[in-house]
Amino acid sequence: MNRGRFIAFEGGEGMGKSTQARMLAEKLERWGRAVELTREPGGTPGAEAIRELLLAPPGEGWPPAAEALLFAAARADHVARRIRPALEAGTWIVCDRFIDSSRAYQGIAGGLGDDSVNALHRVGSDGLLPDLALLIDAPIAAASERLARRDGDTSDAIGGRATEYHEAVNAAFRDFADAEPERFAVIDGSGSIEDVHERVIAVMRSRFEEFARC
Amino acid sequence: MNRGRFIAFEGGEGMGKSTQARMLAEKLERWGRAVELTREPGGTPGAEAIRELLLAPPGEGWPPAAEALLFAAARADHVARRIRPALEAGTWIVCDRFIDSSRAYQGIAGGLGDDSVNALHRVGSDGLLPDLALLIDAPIAAASERLARRDGDTSDAIGGRATEYHEAVNAAFRDFADAEPERFAVIDGSGSIEDVHERVIAVMRSRFEEFARC
Repeated sequence: MNRGRFIAFEGGEGMGKSTQARMLAEKLERWGRAVELTREPGGTPGAEAIRELLLAPPGEGWPPAAEALLFAAARADHVARRIRPALEAGTWIVCDRFIDSSRAYQGIAGGLGDDSVNALHRVGSDGLLPDLALLIDAPIAAASERLARRDGDTSDAIGGRATEYHEAVNAAFRDFADAEPERFAVIDGSGSIEDVHERVIAVMRSRFEEFARC
Repeated sequence: MNRGRFIAFEGGEGMGKSTQARMLAEKLERWGRAVELTREPGGTPGAEAIRELLLAPPGEGWPPAAEALLFAAARADHVARRIRPALEAGTWIVCDRFIDSSRAYQGIAGGLGDDSVNALHRVGSDGLLPDLALLIDAPIAAASERLARRDGDTSDAIGGRATEYHEAVNAAFRDFADAEPERFAVIDGSGSIEDVHERVIAVMRSRFEEFARC
């Protein structure tokens, strides 16, 4: 049996990643693949419990290193209990955020450093990387407008951070994509949900030969 | 102002560490030092919330790497929010367990490896080590008897593990003390609580000149 493939959606806040992940998972099912749609932090009972601690810290907010360790702990559970077993059983994984989000948020924008985040990922998840990271990137003006609307919002401890933090996150994602063009594909996030979905599908056809004629 | 000193109590299950830590903290207060008594995992609101996840996992139990990452996350919060500020303010810290417990339990007995646990500690807590680790070590026969009584117990996800696991933990602690005789002192845990406390105080007098005549 072939190993399943692992597709992660990445990008800043409000880029429509969750919607696009769901639409891709549905398309892969129509193409006859076994698929699991999941998200980070979360995806297992343990990781979802850690997610609650991350988004609503019980104290005065996590120090940057503690936050990165909690994300890595949630990911280690998710990888060991769900992602690796599914891939080995031939199932495709479509995941809303993975390690590149930790690199962008905690590593670059949060100042912990890319080497430290990668070190935690090696210990926690044996360094597992997605086969393809789809970076949804909206034009800066649209993203800024969305983020400005969100700044007064107290939705959660990470989405509610200052605009500068989110700008650093978005810039970090673009740098990662530039540095690893084979592992990343940058998707223009402008236009309708259907427009973006069509761009995602075009990338899937060009990156995976098995879908070239789908 | 002088920096405070950091004393950790270490050892396997049922060695009386919590009681001895409390008695030492009281003695240090009588000797005129500002003291905080704390424990791991825990010691801050965030770390106590992580403690609950560790002792009662919401899923089917944490994979070893996730468990080590959660301990490191709790420790990072504890160090940043409480231990470092107290030491810098001249306060002595007496802590029931610290990094050497993670090395013994997750690193050696749990099989993750000492290098991995130390790597997490460097990222999470900048590698902070206690000035003195007091290892309470009971004769093997007494420890085995205690552990045999505990095996059927479901008190928590870690204390309830098999006897072999706890034997590996105790052996690891002895190896650590052999390897770093200046950072460790091994305390015979046999006899009464008062007997053990007197041995702790004798070590404090010999290791810290300021207490030689107390």
